[in-house]
Amino acid sequence: MAPNEPLFASERRGSSIHSEEEAADEDTALLETQGKIPPNPRHHYGFWRELGLFTWALLATAAVIVLAVLSQHQTSQQDSKKPKAGGKRNLIFMVSDGMGPASLSMTRSFRQLQGGLPIDDILVLDQHFIGSSRTRSTSSLVTDSAAGATAFSCGMKSYNGAISMLPDHSPCGTVLEAAKKAGYMTGLVVTTDITDATPACFASHVKIRTEEDLIAQQEVGEHPLGRVVDLMLGGGRCHFLSNTTDGSCRGDDRDITRLAQESYGWTYIDNRKDFDALESGKAAKLPLLGLFASSDFPFEIDRRNMDDIYPSLDEMTRTALTALEAATKHSDKGFFLMIEGSRIDHAGHGNDPAAQVHEVLAYNRAMGSVVEFLDKSNVEGAFVATSDHETGGLSVAKQINPQYPHYKWFPEVLANATHSSEHLAHQLNSYINQGSRGEDLKLYITGLVQKGLGIRDATDEEIQSLIDQPLLSVYTFANMISRRAQIGWSTHGHSAVDVNIYGSAGTDALRGNHENTDIGKFLREYLDVDVQAITDELSAKSKTFGVSTIHGFDWTGRVPTEEDLQLAETYHEHRYGETS
Amino acid sequence: MAPNEPLFASERRGSSIHSEEEAADEDTALLETQGKIPPNPRHHYGFWRELGLFTWALLATAAVIVLAVLSQHQTSQQDSKKPKAGGKRNLIFMVSDGMGPASLSMTRSFRQLQGGLPIDDILVLDQHFIGSSRTRSTSSLVTDSAAGATAFSCGMKSYNGAISMLPDHSPCGTVLEAAKKAGYMTGLVVTTDITDATPACFASHVKIRTEEDLIAQQEVGEHPLGRVVDLMLGGGRCHFLSNTTDGSCRGDDRDITRLAQESYGWTYIDNRKDFDALESGKAAKLPLLGLFASSDFPFEIDRRNMDDIYPSLDEMTRTALTALEAATKHSDKGFFLMIEGSRIDHAGHGNDPAAQVHEVLAYNRAMGSVVEFLDKSNVEGAFVATSDHETGGLSVAKQINPQYPHYKWFPEVLANATHSSEHLAHQLNSYINQGSRGEDLKLYITGLVQKGLGIRDATDEEIQSLIDQPLLSVYTFANMISRRAQIGWSTHGHSAVDVNIYGSAGTDALRGNHENTDIGKFLREYLDVDVQAITDELSAKSKTFGVSTIHGFDWTGRVPTEEDLQLAETYHEHRYGETS
Repeated sequence: MAPNEPLFASERRGSSIHSEEEAADEDTALLETQGKIPPNPRHHYGFWRELGLFTWALLATAAVIVLAVLSQHQTSQQDSKKPKAGGKRNLIFMVSDGMGPASLSMTRSFRQLQGGLPIDDILVLDQHFIGSSRTRSTSSLVTDSAAGATAFSCGMKSYNGAISMLPDHSPCGTVLEAAKKAGYMTGLVVTTDITDATPACFASHVKIRTEEDLIAQQEVGEHPLGRVVDLMLGGGRCHFLSNTTDGSCRGDDRDITRLAQESYGWTYIDNRKDFDALESGKAAKLPLLGLFASSDFPFEIDRRNMDDIYPSLDEMTRTALTALEAATKHSDKGFFLMIEGSRIDHAGHGNDPAAQVHEVLAYNRAMGSVVEFLDKSNVEGAFVATSDHETGGLSVAKQINPQYPHYKWFPEVLANATHSSEHLAHQLNSYINQGSRGEDLKLYITGLVQKGLGIRDATDEEIQSLIDQPLLSVYTFANMISRRAQIGWSTHGHSAVDVNIYGSAGTDALRGNHENTDIGKFLREYLDVDVQAITDELSAKSKTFGVSTIHGFDWTGRVPTEEDLQLAETYHEHRYGETS
Repeated sequence: MAPNEPLFASERRGSSIHSEEEAADEDTALLETQGKIPPNPRHHYGFWRELGLFTWALLATAAVIVLAVLSQHQTSQQDSKKPKAGGKRNLIFMVSDGMGPASLSMTRSFRQLQGGLPIDDILVLDQHFIGSSRTRSTSSLVTDSAAGATAFSCGMKSYNGAISMLPDHSPCGTVLEAAKKAGYMTGLVVTTDITDATPACFASHVKIRTEEDLIAQQEVGEHPLGRVVDLMLGGGRCHFLSNTTDGSCRGDDRDITRLAQESYGWTYIDNRKDFDALESGKAAKLPLLGLFASSDFPFEIDRRNMDDIYPSLDEMTRTALTALEAATKHSDKGFFLMIEGSRIDHAGHGNDPAAQVHEVLAYNRAMGSVVEFLDKSNVEGAFVATSDHETGGLSVAKQINPQYPHYKWFPEVLANATHSSEHLAHQLNSYINQGSRGEDLKLYITGLVQKGLGIRDATDEEIQSLIDQPLLSVYTFANMISRRAQIGWSTHGHSAVDVNIYGSAGTDALRGNHENTDIGKFLREYLDVDVQAITDELSAKSKTFGVSTIHGFDWTGRVPTEEDLQLAETYHEHRYGETS
């Protein structure tokens, strides 16, 4: 066969089948003639036959080689896209809470400006963009994080406020629970409370998201399936401390950190020093519970100056990857890890573009580490990343002149800010609480605005508004910077825009536009785990499983009132982070 | 061969040739051994050898079959995605001017509500979503349509206001010009002026987009390369009429419709009756110039009641496809057609969500026709669709209560509107111009708001504002509907958010996140045409080519002043469409 000839194998198969039939006839003929000495002319036939057979064999072998090479080439091309059924696998699921499409353009241009990078320099995110997700819940065109995360964890739509519960208030099995059951190791990494809606949906079931005390208990193992998580790193320590202790936000006096350690075998750490002792995960002992903030971590724009107190999202990501990789080294199953850039959402709620670009960049770095891990790992693996919804109604343009909108926005304004509006509001209110008034306060505010926001042209009205309404200062600061950067916001709540989907090789099924539940379905399919069996098991165990401290309700907590559900469809000002 | 076996002729030929050569060698060998009788023991060896050879041949053949099936399966999977090099091709490029990602969610939910469709019912657009485009221009992070379309036509970044001109004011060859040169037929279909930035960028070159008179001349053939377009359907007739004629907006007395017909052979039509006489394109004679509106078409929400005057975007699309298909029937080249949903942008500039959802649905229908055409055509073809930029800073959520943003928006408010704010403003101002004042005017306005916007709870402030500032009524109407639907806008101009890319099979190269210039590069590569040669030709001909009516400037018009460039980076209220 000519070396450059294309190979079209089916045709070959056609002619080969034909030849086989003929060969079979020959074979029979051969056996029948055994013992008889064929007359001379048959020698010639024999020779011809041998030569024919040899030619056939040679041609077929050559074809096998060529086809094998081609097939291998094609397979290896596809392998990078399509997961093989079965086999050991790691899956990392990343959630950029509240990040809509506009955040990308804003953050990319900010990074280009700050780094002096060319206009085609792009984010790790941009390099892995594959699709978009439709986010509505069963109760509204605008979802909250609870219904959003339930779509990911259970692969089902539910109502705003639902933590892996269906509209009929029955629990739905989650991909993390099913993964644990199937022998995978599991982890959750966040920068907000580990009891907040997104992480909660993977490892707990409550009817309304505000039941964070109950979520904390379930997450450590007081759960019908027992302990389902092997690693949790994040904030929200206050939900784990007895209300007899400083820094608690629990309604009861149960110490969940002790419960975790004594009843479920967790290693518990709560500070940077102990985090560092994990040696980037190499020295981690699972199950590992690390709660490094009372509630939220500070925004990244502030945290970078408090690196001795709080680990970064990227550090926690790398630690989790290393620890889970080591823990599954000798297993035939890998791990499932959920990583959330939790506070992109909070920067959106606060309409603070300076805080948001740093949050997105922190998430982008964590994604870079995930990509690097997958590249280096010799275990098959993939990551999928998406948002639950958009927050803030962000637009990368804001009309500040009623006559003519400018086709401009100014990332340099964001680059001049050194702190979040949240941090500055906290500082301002602390200063006022120390008794400052009048000219002293005005001077203080002017300095705060200059140093914290990089704004040297604050108007008298702006300063006066900060003096008059210090409790609203978090929004005033954010508005001062948004206006100058010409960044627009339409709400302090969520919006209905489709959010982006990102993925590594192996996630082709999520290319294009999808319902958010498709993402949940992909996760379970990639891991090849049975979520329905978990739903059934939860349903069966619900009848007998109870939690002693909850009276009058089943283990998934109280039934939400109309008011609860209303609250789940509105936004309430977020607590200040631990920024001092 | 089994009757259902696919036929792969090259392979058959390949192996046959091979066998013949070997057979010839065997023949020679046979002649040499003729006459010698082999000894008896060799009969046994011969038998075993034959059996061995046969087994080998059989196994190898079986392997061929298995590999062939696998390889064929893989190849057919890949074939559907990858365009073949060379060969006849049709390419349709669609532009949704000013449509950002938020428009999709808004339009999809509106359509679901209006049609009583399930929550996972999606748009044609959604089914073809493949990527996103970064839109900045050389002069700003926020592009205008001119720089945006230059990225598509030339595959190069340029300044806001540039019509296929580079920052050094030299013309860049366009994909349409290169396609025409290569033997393709070409077309432009729009619902705004055919001289507006997007269509202009494919068939003309001027330094600043406001030179629409010059664009009109170039588009019909007064162009260094002669006539490059075969079909133009849209609005903007006023730029083609002598300023001695009613309905002209030209600066001079040249009749470009006559120039087109007499010097460049165009068939010119300007009304619905003549459009209908085209018999959906079957009776079209190319080159065909159809200008059905003085400037813009009415918004689709209004046009649907004026169907006897203006064809729809979908009708023009199907007409263009049929006409171009027929005209290239006997050619070895296909066609390149650009179709623009032009006024999605205008609805964004006006912040009118009711007008916008109907514009997007009209574009969606046109895309449906393109998909159907490609499915039925026996010529290889593809479509790519994208936006030049987002307009309006649209958010599908708007906080109307300073305390609590609701996680809601209300498509039913848009469904209640029967007309665009533009149409209603036109009606209001006409009525006022007839002399109405006082109570009569108030009553009229209340009726207009009820019938036109479906709003029955207009506040006294809203009515008074319409009475006091009728010239701003277009924005007041739009704001009344946006607030009630809880739809947010941040500007009357453009924003910097990445826009979506859509495509059929054959456009895999545009999956993921891309610079807008990548789309321009894809177009030329798909058609396999040489845009650089056009740039060179334009450069060479620029030295001698002149247009008599332009004095003191070369053929690409006057050099923009600082003021021109400033204007290109701001938005100016759009003329009212022909809505009465």
